[in-house]
Amino acid sequence: MSDIPNILAERYASPAMRDIWSPTGRIRLERQLWIAVMKAQQELGLDIPSEAIAAYESVVDQIDTDAIAARERVTRHDVKARIEEFCDLAGHEHIHKGMTSRDLTENVEQLQIYRALEVIRLKTAAALVRLSRRATEQRDQVLTARTHNVAAQVTTLGKRLAMFGEDLSGAFDQLLHLLATYPVRGLKGAAGTLLDQLSLFDGDAARVARLEESVVRHLGLPACLENTGQVYPRSLDFRVISVLNELASGPSSFAKTWRLMAGHELASEGFAKGQVGSSAMPHKMNSRSCERINGFKVILAGHLTMAGHLAGDQWNEGDVSCSVVRRVMLPDAFFALDGLLETFLTVLDQMEIFSQVIERETAHYLPFLLTTTVLMEAVRRGAGREAAHEAIKEHAVDAIRDLRRGLRTENDLFSRLSADPRLGLTAAEMSDLFEQGKANTGLAGEQVDAFAAHVRNHVATVVPEAAAYHPGAIL
Amino acid sequence: MSDIPNILAERYASPAMRDIWSPTGRIRLERQLWIAVMKAQQELGLDIPSEAIAAYESVVDQIDTDAIAARERVTRHDVKARIEEFCDLAGHEHIHKGMTSRDLTENVEQLQIYRALEVIRLKTAAALVRLSRRATEQRDQVLTARTHNVAAQVTTLGKRLAMFGEDLSGAFDQLLHLLATYPVRGLKGAAGTLLDQLSLFDGDAARVARLEESVVRHLGLPACLENTGQVYPRSLDFRVISVLNELASGPSSFAKTWRLMAGHELASEGFAKGQVGSSAMPHKMNSRSCERINGFKVILAGHLTMAGHLAGDQWNEGDVSCSVVRRVMLPDAFFALDGLLETFLTVLDQMEIFSQVIERETAHYLPFLLTTTVLMEAVRRGAGREAAHEAIKEHAVDAIRDLRRGLRTENDLFSRLSADPRLGLTAAEMSDLFEQGKANTGLAGEQVDAFAAHVRNHVATVVPEAAAYHPGAIL
Amino acid sequence: MSDIPNILAERYASPAMRDIWSPTGRIRLERQLWIAVMKAQQELGLDIPSEAIAAYESVVDQIDTDAIAARERVTRHDVKARIEEFCDLAGHEHIHKGMTSRDLTENVEQLQIYRALEVIRLKTAAALVRLSRRATEQRDQVLTARTHNVAAQVTTLGKRLAMFGEDLSGAFDQLLHLLATYPVRGLKGAAGTLLDQLSLFDGDAARVARLEESVVRHLGLPACLENTGQVYPRSLDFRVISVLNELASGPSSFAKTWRLMAGHELASEGFAKGQVGSSAMPHKMNSRSCERINGFKVILAGHLTMAGHLAGDQWNEGDVSCSVVRRVMLPDAFFALDGLLETFLTVLDQMEIFSQVIERETAHYLPFLLTTTVLMEAVRRGAGREAAHEAIKEHAVDAIRDLRRGLRTENDLFSRLSADPRLGLTAAEMSDLFEQGKANTGLAGEQVDAFAAHVRNHVATVVPEAAAYHPGAIL
Amino acid sequence: MSDIPNILAERYASPAMRDIWSPTGRIRLERQLWIAVMKAQQELGLDIPSEAIAAYESVVDQIDTDAIAARERVTRHDVKARIEEFCDLAGHEHIHKGMTSRDLTENVEQLQIYRALEVIRLKTAAALVRLSRRATEQRDQVLTARTHNVAAQVTTLGKRLAMFGEDLSGAFDQLLHLLATYPVRGLKGAAGTLLDQLSLFDGDAARVARLEESVVRHLGLPACLENTGQVYPRSLDFRVISVLNELASGPSSFAKTWRLMAGHELASEGFAKGQVGSSAMPHKMNSRSCERINGFKVILAGHLTMAGHLAGDQWNEGDVSCSVVRRVMLPDAFFALDGLLETFLTVLDQMEIFSQVIERETAHYLPFLLTTTVLMEAVRRGAGREAAHEAIKEHAVDAIRDLRRGLRTENDLFSRLSADPRLGLTAAEMSDLFEQGKANTGLAGEQVDAFAAHVRNHVATVVPEAAAYHPGAIL
Repeated sequence: MSDIPNILAERYASPAMRDIWSPTGRIRLERQLWIAVMKAQQELGLDIPSEAIAAYESVVDQIDTDAIAARERVTRHDVKARIEEFCDLAGHEHIHKGMTSRDLTENVEQLQIYRALEVIRLKTAAALVRLSRRATEQRDQVLTARTHNVAAQVTTLGKRLAMFGEDLSGAFDQLLHLLATYPVRGLKGAAGTLLDQLSLFDGDAARVARLEESVVRHLGLPACLENTGQVYPRSLDFRVISVLNELASGPSSFAKTWRLMAGHELASEGFAKGQVGSSAMPHKMNSRSCERINGFKVILAGHLTMAGHLAGDQWNEGDVSCSVVRRVMLPDAFFALDGLLETFLTVLDQMEIFSQVIERETAHYLPFLLTTTVLMEAVRRGAGREAAHEAIKEHAVDAIRDLRRGLRTENDLFSRLSADPRLGLTAAEMSDLFEQGKANTGLAGEQVDAFAAHVRNHVATVVPEAAAYHPGAIL
Repeated sequence: MSDIPNILAERYASPAMRDIWSPTGRIRLERQLWIAVMKAQQELGLDIPSEAIAAYESVVDQIDTDAIAARERVTRHDVKARIEEFCDLAGHEHIHKGMTSRDLTENVEQLQIYRALEVIRLKTAAALVRLSRRATEQRDQVLTARTHNVAAQVTTLGKRLAMFGEDLSGAFDQLLHLLATYPVRGLKGAAGTLLDQLSLFDGDAARVARLEESVVRHLGLPACLENTGQVYPRSLDFRVISVLNELASGPSSFAKTWRLMAGHELASEGFAKGQVGSSAMPHKMNSRSCERINGFKVILAGHLTMAGHLAGDQWNEGDVSCSVVRRVMLPDAFFALDGLLETFLTVLDQMEIFSQVIERETAHYLPFLLTTTVLMEAVRRGAGREAAHEAIKEHAVDAIRDLRRGLRTENDLFSRLSADPRLGLTAAEMSDLFEQGKANTGLAGEQVDAFAAHVRNHVATVVPEAAAYHPGAIL
Repeated sequence: MSDIPNILAERYASPAMRDIWSPTGRIRLERQLWIAVMKAQQELGLDIPSEAIAAYESVVDQIDTDAIAARERVTRHDVKARIEEFCDLAGHEHIHKGMTSRDLTENVEQLQIYRALEVIRLKTAAALVRLSRRATEQRDQVLTARTHNVAAQVTTLGKRLAMFGEDLSGAFDQLLHLLATYPVRGLKGAAGTLLDQLSLFDGDAARVARLEESVVRHLGLPACLENTGQVYPRSLDFRVISVLNELASGPSSFAKTWRLMAGHELASEGFAKGQVGSSAMPHKMNSRSCERINGFKVILAGHLTMAGHLAGDQWNEGDVSCSVVRRVMLPDAFFALDGLLETFLTVLDQMEIFSQVIERETAHYLPFLLTTTVLMEAVRRGAGREAAHEAIKEHAVDAIRDLRRGLRTENDLFSRLSADPRLGLTAAEMSDLFEQGKANTGLAGEQVDAFAAHVRNHVATVVPEAAAYHPGAIL
Repeated sequence: MSDIPNILAERYASPAMRDIWSPTGRIRLERQLWIAVMKAQQELGLDIPSEAIAAYESVVDQIDTDAIAARERVTRHDVKARIEEFCDLAGHEHIHKGMTSRDLTENVEQLQIYRALEVIRLKTAAALVRLSRRATEQRDQVLTARTHNVAAQVTTLGKRLAMFGEDLSGAFDQLLHLLATYPVRGLKGAAGTLLDQLSLFDGDAARVARLEESVVRHLGLPACLENTGQVYPRSLDFRVISVLNELASGPSSFAKTWRLMAGHELASEGFAKGQVGSSAMPHKMNSRSCERINGFKVILAGHLTMAGHLAGDQWNEGDVSCSVVRRVMLPDAFFALDGLLETFLTVLDQMEIFSQVIERETAHYLPFLLTTTVLMEAVRRGAGREAAHEAIKEHAVDAIRDLRRGLRTENDLFSRLSADPRLGLTAAEMSDLFEQGKANTGLAGEQVDAFAAHVRNHVATVVPEAAAYHPGAIL
C-alpha cells in the first residue's frame, strides 16, 4: 500500500506502544468497548443473552483486517463492516445497540490513550528505578557543580542524577493523577443528550444514568464525563499531551547535561556490547542517544502546539476541525515519548562515568571555589580582613590570567596563597582546607538518599513491575 | 520612567493580580519569605529574638520603592539594598541568614505564582457558579444542536452552557490539584546542596532537613522540593502555564460558540447599563468581549510555547537561559488569564438570549431532524418501508432544494409529507410528531442538573466566596 | 514490516509528494546528486570518464530496495550499501569521491525539500487560478459583508473570494522568492572546511571553489552556502516551514468562512458526483473538507514549533539534536500542505453557492446598513437632522427588538420609515434607496478584476501548467 | 497609572524602538498618515489647501497626551479626540476624510511595523559588520571543530564566527525582501470595498484606484494590498514575526556556542570597562548576555505561536479575535529582537578569546584527529596496511583509556606511535605530521574572506550607517 511508514512508530517506539495504535490494536479495543457496553446493557435489563457476550469475548482476538476490508468494499461503510465481521465471528447480533459512530470512535480513542498512558507509566517508573540506582552508585562521587555553565561549588554526581530524577518524579505524579481521574466521553449519542440510549431504555433516565458508569467500570477506567456534545472537550487531549511533555522534561535536561559532560569526557552515554566507536578515532563517541532524547522533546513540543489549537476551539456541540490533527498528534506524541523513554533507559543502562576526569576537573577549579573559606581562615588566624582579601584577589586574578594565557595548565592558586605571608597559612593548612573543601558537598548525599527512598517507597510500590522492565534494542 | 506600560496588566488584569506582580507586591512577598525563614530558623534553635521577628512583621507593608532605589545607587546591589531597607525599618539585622540571592528570588517567584493561582481559583469558581446559574435558567430552552456547524438534533441551551461548564470544571480540578501539590524550591543555596544553611546550623543535617519544611508551613504552601540545583526544574513553570491554558479552554469554546450565535441573533454578549450599540445601526452589537476571550487564549498559547522551551533545557545545576523569558512569561500569562476570566464573568452577567429566534431556528430545521421518526411511524402504521423511505427522501430533497433556491423561506417538509398518501400520516399526526420531536432533548435537563449539583457541592464548597465575587468594569 | 503507515502520506498526500519522500524517491535523488558531483569533478579536471557517468545515469531508476537491504546486512553501513549497489549496477566506481556521509544526506534532504517546494508551487498556482475563476464568476453576486461576524456593509462574493486569494497570492510570492534563493549546503565535509575535496584536488582552492557552483548548476538549484559547519543552519528549515505555514493561511481563512456560510446555507463545499449527503437528512452536508483544511493548518503550526526549536540551537559546528525531528517534521509538513492544497482544489471545483439564500440575507440586513443613507436623504429633502435621527433610531430599535423577540421574521424597518412623516420620504423613494444600497459594493468588482489580472499575468505565467492541474480524489 | 511597566521595553529595548511603540510615537505616525492621505487627496483633485497641509505638518511633533486624554473624557471616543486635537493645533479641518477607524489603525500599525523593521535592519547590519570584523581577526586562529560536541577536525575560530554570520546574513536578506515588498492595507473602508473614498470622489473609480498608490508613496512604503476586508490578512503579521524569529537564529546559535566555549575558558563574553566578575571568584564570569540572547529567542518563539494562531483564522471580512493578541505580540516581538541585537552587539564588542586555551585543546585532541593521516603515511613508507591499522588502533584505545582513567592528562598518542616499529615513522616525522595537521583547516580562511567580502559589498552598501552604530549600555 503506502510505502511510507510512520517513522516514529517504526524506528523508535516499542511493540507494546505500536500495538495500541495499530489498526489491529484499535479493532481489539473497539471490540472490548462493544462487550463492555453489552454487559452494562444486560445488567440494566436489556435482553442480551450471556452466551452471546461469551461468544463475542471468545473471538475478540480473531482480527482479520483483509476480511474487514472486503466487507467494507461491499457496505462502503467502515464501522458497519467491522460490526458485521465481529457479529459473524460470534454468531450473534447484539453489539452497537443505541450507539452512533462517535459513541464508538471517541471512546475507542480514549481507550487507546488510556492504555498508552499505562505503558508510559511502566517505563517512567522503570526510568526512575534506574535513575535511583545510578544516583545511589554515584552518591558520593564529588563533582564540580556548574551554574551558568561555570564551576560554582562542589556537589556529587549522585545528586546531579537525583536532581533530574526529581524532575521526572514530579511528572510521574502528574501522570498518576491523570490516570486516576481521566474521564471518558461515554455513550452520549449524536449531540450529547444520550437520546438513543434513552430510547433503547424506553425513556428510563435512571437506568441510562447508570449505564455509562457500568461501561466505565467494565473497561477499568476511572470516570465518565457528564455534559459533552458530540465530542469530548479537546482540553482533555491537551491535558494528556501536556503531561507527556512534562514527562520528557527530566530526561531531556539529563540528556543535555550528559552531552555537555561527554564533550569534556566526564562521562559518556556508553555503547552496547559489541558496538564500537570509530576504530580510527576511538575518542569520537557521539552522544547520539542523548541528542535523540532532546529531539523527541522538540517533537512533543510540536504536538503540544497542535493540542493547544484544538482546546478551546469547539463550535457548538462539536465542530473543532480536529479529526486530521488527532489522527496524527495522538499516536505520534505517544510514539515520541515511548521512543524517548526507551532511549533514556538504554542510556541509563549503558552510561559510563570517568571518575578520574571528574576529579581532575574538581581539583582544577576547587581553589577558586574555596577563596571565601581561605579568607575566613586567614582572618581567624589573625590576618587583617582587608589585607587578606586584597592578597587573595591579587593571586586569584593572576592565577586565572595565567591559566587563560596558557602559561599554566594547573591551577596554582593555593600554592601562591601558601607562599603569601599576608595570609599566614602554611602549605599544610592550605592542603587541609583543600581536602575539606573537596568534601563540602552539603546535604548532597542525604538528598540522594531521599530520592532513592521516594522511588523505593512510592514509585516501585505503585508500579512493582518497573524494576524488571528492560528496554528493547535501540537504533 | 518608561512610558510603555504592560498592556495586559493595565488594560485587562484586575488590581488583585496586578498587585502580586507589581514591584511593591513582590517586595511584600519577599519580606514575608524572610520572616518565614527567621521563624523557622528560630524554631530550630538559631538565636533570633521574637521581638526582632515582630518588628519585621510590623513594617512589612511600609514599602518605599524610592528609598530602596536610593540605597541601590549606593550599594550597587539590588538585594542588598532591599535587605538594608527592611532591616533599618525594623531596627534589627536578622534576615537573609545563610541565604543566597537565588534562595530569595526563586522562592519569591514561586510565592507570586502561588498567590496568583489562588486569585485564579476564586475567579474560576465564580465563573462556574455563574455558568451553573445560567445553565439552570436555560435548562429547558430547546435549541438546535449543531455538529459540523450544521443542525443535527435538538438539545437545550442550558445543556450547551453546562457543556462548556464541564470543560472548565475539569480544568478547575487540575488547578486544585496543582494548588494542593505545588512544591517550592526552598533554601537550597548556590548549587542546591544546602551548604550555607548546613554551615549556619554547624553541620546538623537533621535540623536543616526540618528547616525547609518549617518555612513552607509558615508560608502556607503545600510542599518543598528535595533535589534541586541552583534553580527549581522549569517543568514546574510549564505545569503552571499548562493549567492556565487548560483553564482558558472552556471559556474559549463558549466564546467561539457565542460569536457564532450572535452572528445569527440567537444571543448576544449583552452590554453594560448605559452602553449602547451604534445608534444608527442598533443591530451591530459586536461580540468584542467574546473575541477578546479567544484572543487571550492565543496569548496563553504563546506563553505555553515559551514554557515548553524552558522545561527540559537545564544545563548542569542550572543554566537554562530562562531569566528574561520568565520575567515576561510568568506575569503576562497570569494577566492574560485574569483578563480572560474578568471578561468571561462580565459576559456571563450581561449576556442576552433571544428565545424566539432560537425557537424559530429549531422550527426551521426540525422537520429534517425528524425524518427517521416519520419513517418509523409510517412503517408502524402499515406503510412499506422502502416505499416510505423513497417518499420521504423525495420530499426532503425537494424541500431543501426549494429553501436553497429561495423559493421558500419556511421549511414545508412536514406539510409535504402529510399530503403524501404513501406514508399514511395525517396532518394532525404529523403535528404531534413535530411537537414531540421538539421536546426530544434526551437527558439534557438531567445533565444540566448534574452540572449544577457539582458546582453547588464541589466548587462552591471549596471556594465559598466565589458566588459573591463580581468582576471589575472591563474596557 | 511496520503495520503503522504515515497517515498524512497515505490518506491525504498526492503520489507526486509521496514519491519525493519515499525510500525509493530518496535513493533516486541521492543518485542524481552523486552524478551531479561526478560531472562537476570531471569538468574541473578529475579523471572521471564520461562513459562512467553515462553508465550511472542509465541505471538511476533501477532501484531495488531489497537488494540494498541485503547489502546492508553485510556491510552494516547504509550509505556504503547504497554506494556498492549503484556502482555494481553501473559497472564503475567513481561516485562519492571526497564526500562524507553528511555531504550526501544534507544535500539530498535539501533536494527533497526543493522538489517538494516545486510540487507546492504547482498546486498553489492551480489554486490561485481556480480561485480567480470562481471570484470572476461571483464578481457581482451581492453579499452581506460581515465584520465581528455581524452584518456590516454589502460586498460581493467574488470580492470575498478574491480577498482570500490575495492572502494566498502573497504567500505564493514568498514561495517563489524561496525557490529563487534557496541555498544548499554543498560538499563541505565533516566540519565544513571542504578539507576532503581540497585533498582530492591537491589543495587547489580555486577549483574547489568552483566545484560546488558546478554541482548546484547540475542539480538546477539556485545557490550554495559558503560558511556551514557539518550541517546547514536550521534557520533554513525554519524558513521553509514558515512559508508552508503562510501558504496555508489563505485557504484556511477561506475554509473557516465557508464553514460559517455553510452553517446558514449560503453555500456548501459541494459533493463529488455520485456522493450524497445522508439520504434521510439531505440538509446535513457537513463541511468536512473545509474542516480538514483548518486541521492541516493546525498540524503545520505544530511543525513550525518544532522548526522554531531547531533554528538557533546549533552547538559548535553542528550539534543540534535535530535528526529525529527533521525525519518527522520535513516530510510531514509537506504531506500536510500537499493534502491541504488537494482538498482546497477539490472544494474549489465542487463548491455550491446558494444565491437566493445569500440575497435573502442581504435583503434582511440591508435596512440596518442603510440608516445613514436614509438620514442623509431625509435631511436633503428638508427634514431636521436631529428629528430625523431620532425617528430613525426609534424605528431601528423597534425593528431589531421585534426581530429578536420573534414578533417578525422580516426586517420591516423601511416600511416603518416610509410611514413616518418626520422623514418625508415616500415608499417609492425608500424603495429606490434600497435598490441603490444593495448595489453599493464600492470597488468590489474592480478589485476582483485586479486579482484576476494578477493571476493571469503573474501566477499563470510563472506556472503555465497550473490551469491544467486537477487534484486527485480525496477521502 | 499602572505601576507595571513593559519589561521588554524598559529593560532591554533601545530608545529608537521604544519610541515607535510608545503612545507618543504612535500619535506621530498617525499624523503622518493623515498628512499623506491629505496630500494624495489633494493631488487627485480634492479641495484641500496646501497651507492647511503645511499647517498640519508644522505641528506633527506637538504631542500632548494629557490634552488628548482630556478631550477623550468629553468625546468618549479616542480617535475623535485625536482628530480634534490635531485639527485645533493646525487650525484646519481637513484630516480623516472618507476614512473609518480601521483605515487609521490598521495602517498606523503597519507603519509602526515598517519603521521597527527599519530599526532592525540597521542593527542586523551592524551585527554583521561586527561579526565580519571579528571573523577576520580570528581568520587563522586554529580551533578544534566539534560535531556532536566531540572534537572532529580542525577549523578556525574565524570560520566558526563566519558560520554564524552566514546564518544571520541569510535572515538579513529575508528582512530586505520583506522591506522591499511589505504591502499596507490602504484606505479600504469598513468592509474593504473603498466605499467611502469612492463616495468622496463622486464614484470616480479611476481616481480612487490611484489614491492609495499615492498615499503609499508619500509614506515611503513599497506596496499596497488590493483585496482586503476590514483588516489586512494576518498572514502578513505572521510573515513579519517569522522573519524576526529567523533573525534571532544566527545570534542564538552563536550565543549557545559561546556559552559552551566559556564553560571551558576558550572564550568569554567579556565585561564592560569597570565591570568585574566576583572579586573573590574571578573565574566566575557568567555568560549572562549570551544566555539572555537565547532567552529572547524563546520569547520570539512564543510570539510566533501567537502569530500562527491569527493567520488563517479570519472569519468573513474580518473577525479574527486578534486585537488583544496584536497589542501584545507586535510591540513585544520587536522589543525582544531589539534587545537581542543590542545584547549581541555588546557581546561582539566585548568578547574575549583565550587563544592559548584554544590551542591547548587542539593540541590535546589533534593526535586522535590525525590517525587516518598517520595510517596513510605509514603505508606510503612501506608498512602493511592491516598491521599499521592494528597498531594505531591499539595505541589509540590505550591513550583514550589512560586519559579517561586519569592516568595521564596529556594525550601521548603520537609518542606511542613514534615508538612503535610497526609504523616505521620517526618522532621527527610524526612531529611534522602534527604540525601540518594542525594547519589543515581546509578552506576555512577563504570562507572567512568570502563572508567578509559579502558583508563589505552587500550589507555595508545597503546600510552604510551600520558600521558606525553603537549599542546602548545593557543591564
